Amino acid sequence: MIEINYNIALIIEYDGSNYYGFQKQIGVQTIQDQLEQALFLFTNEKINVITAGRTDTGVHAIYQVVNFITTVKRSINSWVRGVNAFLPKDIVIKEATTVPLEFNARFDAISRTYHYYLYNNFIRSSLLYKRVGWYQKKLDINKMKIAASYLIGEHDFSCFRASSCQANTPNRTITTFTIVNKEDIIKFEITANAFLHHMVRNIIGSLVYIGDGKINLEYFLQILKDLDRKNAPPTFMADGLYLAKVIYPINYFSYNPSNWLF
Amino acid sequence: MIEINYNIALIIEYDGSNYYGFQKQIGVQTIQDQLEQALFLFTNEKINVITAGRTDTGVHAIYQVVNFITTVKRSINSWVRGVNAFLPKDIVIKEATTVPLEFNARFDAISRTYHYYLYNNFIRSSLLYKRVGWYQKKLDINKMKIAASYLIGEHDFSCFRASSCQANTPNRTITTFTIVNKEDIIKFEITANAFLHHMVRNIIGSLVYIGDGKINLEYFLQILKDLDRKNAPPTFMADGLYLAKVIYPINYFSYNPSNWLF
Repeated sequence: MIEINYNIALIIEYDGSNYYGFQKQIGVQTIQDQLEQALFLFTNEKINVITAGRTDTGVHAIYQVVNFITTVKRSINSWVRGVNAFLPKDIVIKEATTVPLEFNARFDAISRTYHYYLYNNFIRSSLLYKRVGWYQKKLDINKMKIAASYLIGEHDFSCFRASSCQANTPNRTITTFTIVNKEDIIKFEITANAFLHHMVRNIIGSLVYIGDGKINLEYFLQILKDLDRKNAPPTFMADGLYLAKVIYPINYFSYNPSNWLF
Repeated sequence: MIEINYNIALIIEYDGSNYYGFQKQIGVQTIQDQLEQALFLFTNEKINVITAGRTDTGVHAIYQVVNFITTVKRSINSWVRGVNAFLPKDIVIKEATTVPLEFNARFDAISRTYHYYLYNNFIRSSLLYKRVGWYQKKLDINKMKIAASYLIGEHDFSCFRASSCQANTPNRTITTFTIVNKEDIIKFEITANAFLHHMVRNIIGSLVYIGDGKINLEYFLQILKDLDRKNAPPTFMADGLYLAKVIYPINYFSYNPSNWLF
């Protein structure tokens, strides 16, 4: 019997509140564990998924991409509906598609977009608990926009890189960085070729210091130039962070996510 | 020593997912339990709260109003910040204010507004799980708007009244009922002098049947005329329901909630 291999790519949405991030780790529950278990229950094959972004503990995804090789032939619709039936309510497959065997969700991705929602109000939110970051003091959004503009382009982002980061180089290219707000929520949208470990949360931490007046724009530029994580403000909480899009040279998907909040 | 009584009114926001509704009940956790316990820890007084709306299991609130009598004198700011420190993360006081001793959050309310968010998509949402109702088949919003318009004004709403309802009369006056949508979420906003038990969820259940084509507008009018719950479609799930506003003849509050989702 000849076995045919299929390469299946999925778009996944999840609320990361209850998980220790995407990637498999011994002794804790992760998104990858849940996904691979649901795939096993659906296919009866031990499947290993490759992911576009290894989101951290508590980080969410609006549009995460994974792929895996399988010998199981199923309709595209049943990859979505069938596997969703085995997934917990806080994880869902939004689209499945067959891709060329050489497609790799991690190495083929040419850009990732993250969104960060920050609730900027004196009193916390109950409805948005775990879904947004929270900062009590009113922030100066215009100053944060100026600081964000300094980050556009290719830079050595050592100042925003976690010590645990395993990347080969600290250089990353930020292509767009926009900050918008609606009522008391500030939304940061940041796109880069790739991100260093904790890079978005470290950037948000520094922008919040700018918006609060704890550091000024000159100091912010100096942080960037010093290439030293120790000089920069602390990492901001994971709660408001969402992997929002992954781009490939060829787009195999049709799914267009609705905006979460706005 | 002369004891002075104060009447304190609060605006409360909560995610009702983890509670058996607002009202105290033996053997289960309710919003009222949490609130009265937090007030006890803050004041060292056994406080009974009066509420504008006894929301059901799983129902949320953007703007719930309660009041209580206390002999404890505290600044308005510390009623908010102090009690919030004792509340769980899914319940929060948004505003506190001193009101005349005769103010009663339940009996003085002249109108209540509920919002219902319905996720109308073939595939469920993980990020909005427990926060929205879900219906897979595409609904005809225009037909639902026509049906909703039939409900405006004073009617005997026996057809939308739960058998458990303890109200003296089945008559209620709906003053506004609007349906808007954004991408795949449909938002129902309904204001009435008061609501019967399960009235909003029963109305949503019938509107969904209209939008799906399971019943037509003539049948809907007949349901209304028959005054019999047994003829009407089933109660819709609690997940998407939010108490969104309570109006009094005199407005003692300044809080203006941001829109949840839109």
